Amino acid sequence: MDIDAANQTAVEQMMSARPMLTGLAPAREVIRGMKDNLILHAGPPIGWPRMSGPLRGGVIGALLFEGLAKDEKAAIRMAEAGEIEFAPCHHYQTVGPMAGVTSASMEVYVIENPTQGNKAFSNLNEGYGKVLRYGAYSPEVLKKLHWMNDTLGSILKAALAESQGIDLRALLAEALHMGDEGHNRNKAASLLYLKQLAPLVARVAKDPGLEAEVLQFLGDNALSVLNPVMAACKAMADAAHGVAGSTIVSAMARNGTDFGIRVSGLGEAWFTAPADIPRGLYFPGFTSEDANPDIGDSTITETAGIGGFAMAAAPAIVAFVSGSPQDATNATLEMYEITVAEHRHFTIPALDFRGTPTGIDIRKVVELGITPRVNTGIAHKDPGVGQVGAGLVRPPKEIFEQALIAYAEKYGL
Amino acid sequence: MDIDAANQTAVEQMMSARPMLTGLAPAREVIRGMKDNLILHAGPPIGWPRMSGPLRGGVIGALLFEGLAKDEKAAIRMAEAGEIEFAPCHHYQTVGPMAGVTSASMEVYVIENPTQGNKAFSNLNEGYGKVLRYGAYSPEVLKKLHWMNDTLGSILKAALAESQGIDLRALLAEALHMGDEGHNRNKAASLLYLKQLAPLVARVAKDPGLEAEVLQFLGDNALSVLNPVMAACKAMADAAHGVAGSTIVSAMARNGTDFGIRVSGLGEAWFTAPADIPRGLYFPGFTSEDANPDIGDSTITETAGIGGFAMAAAPAIVAFVSGSPQDATNATLEMYEITVAEHRHFTIPALDFRGTPTGIDIRKVVELGITPRVNTGIAHKDPGVGQVGAGLVRPPKEIFEQALIAYAEKYGL
Repeated sequence: MDIDAANQTAVEQMMSARPMLTGLAPAREVIRGMKDNLILHAGPPIGWPRMSGPLRGGVIGALLFEGLAKDEKAAIRMAEAGEIEFAPCHHYQTVGPMAGVTSASMEVYVIENPTQGNKAFSNLNEGYGKVLRYGAYSPEVLKKLHWMNDTLGSILKAALAESQGIDLRALLAEALHMGDEGHNRNKAASLLYLKQLAPLVARVAKDPGLEAEVLQFLGDNALSVLNPVMAACKAMADAAHGVAGSTIVSAMARNGTDFGIRVSGLGEAWFTAPADIPRGLYFPGFTSEDANPDIGDSTITETAGIGGFAMAAAPAIVAFVSGSPQDATNATLEMYEITVAEHRHFTIPALDFRGTPTGIDIRKVVELGITPRVNTGIAHKDPGVGQVGAGLVRPPKEIFEQALIAYAEKYGL
Repeated sequence: MDIDAANQTAVEQMMSARPMLTGLAPAREVIRGMKDNLILHAGPPIGWPRMSGPLRGGVIGALLFEGLAKDEKAAIRMAEAGEIEFAPCHHYQTVGPMAGVTSASMEVYVIENPTQGNKAFSNLNEGYGKVLRYGAYSPEVLKKLHWMNDTLGSILKAALAESQGIDLRALLAEALHMGDEGHNRNKAASLLYLKQLAPLVARVAKDPGLEAEVLQFLGDNALSVLNPVMAACKAMADAAHGVAGSTIVSAMARNGTDFGIRVSGLGEAWFTAPADIPRGLYFPGFTSEDANPDIGDSTITETAGIGGFAMAAAPAIVAFVSGSPQDATNATLEMYEITVAEHRHFTIPALDFRGTPTGIDIRKVVELGITPRVNTGIAHKDPGVGQVGAGLVRPPKEIFEQALIAYAEKYGL
């Protein structure tokens, strides 16, 4: 078994994937297997009893949004009674930030990768304040979700239908030259996204007032493009999955209770352990006492070579996630130790345009004892509250050890 | 004479200025003293006989645009016959990139600085390709100018009238955290500008097709915001002008023949010497043989502490102007040697959020022999051709020496 060759194949497939944002559609229409009583969530598989507060909050919100439950109590009762099926977004070619809750009526971005022919999906980004992805489900949260699904969704859908598709790999490459790292900082990428959408929106919008609302919402939300970016990373990571013998990580995700990874050469298995509490900066009035363990599918960005791996491109991010610009540079330099390639398309000007560290090798993680660096938002541990900060976290080391043991068993090494 | 105190006063006024973009209007309506047979140009004063090719090209184009001349020959004849008056933009609170040619009918941005109560103006940015500011004046150049003045101008005017004014200092501060240096690289700033304009444009535009055209033009032009940014820098630099005893440079500008500076404590005098040819990267098919000497008012950005002085914020710019990211960092570090302050609002993440070097002290320039670093476009030396590259240049040392001698004479030192 030539593991290095298998890894080069995997990482080449990851880098040659070219995710294009081609449209928007209700989850039930485009995600194969999606159905009304199925709720997709971030991270590895988990049932209601072990779900954390923010994930439960997201589920309650989705049941209210779908009209499946009339109030919070009814939603909890349904979940407890087993009337709702739960599954990881990742099992449905989908990713979602934080709770990642995606239900059948929600409009999702459709990403197509013509290189390998796979697709990926993600829900719409809600912006700041009280939002479902952080486990909030008050009437204002639901009202915004409905506005997004109806007004924003219908205009975006018509605009994207007018486009030739938006090349998200090219967009990310440009954003990395504009101080983004592509996970917690998507300020430039969101503006590049707005720039491509604005003329399309102008052509398709019927009502100038709604059009202005949509352009304002997209422009004011520096995470507008996070969700399609995550789906683009999912498409790239999936392109690297399933290479026999490869020790490259093809998914990292957290459900708020467990941190899980998948490995290219190890099929559909998840390797999981309890997720840590991120270290970072808290919003006024909150401390690490309030924090939920790490949550969300957004670590798909680090899996694909950006996010915490591209921190050196985004020195300004330290004002948000803590640390110094030198720490940001060091984060990237450290990640070269545990990866097998430097990205051909994602480069970092400050490092003399060196490619970002790409393709996490579980062998290197275990051998060097260096786990991946992840940038993340921090959710309150209780349902219904929301974001309390942002910071840095690493997956537990043991999941890489588990994966390596499974690898040895599978390949008889 | 406490020169240091005078310089602190001057630079404090520069930094406390808060240029707001408040509107758009024809030059003749808002620039005091503007008239039909007056052409404003970049740099220090110059007459037709000594004008360089690109400046002559700009003048010819403006006379055609205004309908004052029916063809190129007639335009040249009028200029030679003394029927046209020429004056520096700087004498009219105005700045323009490259040739900087501004005539009475052209729509200009209006910048107001409520802190000190002064105003500044600049024309609209034409984008890439054959453009008047590089001395081109073919029918396609004039057609675009008319589209800009009519379609773009009327929509922008209506949009800005709906706004509360756009805070350009805040916009620049944000752009410096997004890989811009504010002169040759205004990619992030132009998108931040688009973000603010798009919802306003949606509200005021009557025709979806024209609206889409305008949003596309603004979004595709990574220099869209350069002209209002330059006028903002002019407003900041003018706020620092006229402080008795100050040795701070309050204007640097080139007309394609001479490089000129003004000094805060030395009134309206220009100190000039022949401009150099920039060093840089040339477009395919061109070499330094084709280059015109340094031209344009855009050095107002360096005068105000950004542009070449903020290179460390924009490592990706080296792909455009030559050099390495380390050179970019060194450029900023060197400029701290000849300036009197670190900007309170403009900071550089990669330098631990240190303020940009601000307020060029002619004493330090002369004493250390370090002249300011300037990022610039490079124009072809012949009229009618256009841009041939981009690069770096410095003003001639002797103009700082001349200014220091004039200072000694004026203040009897």
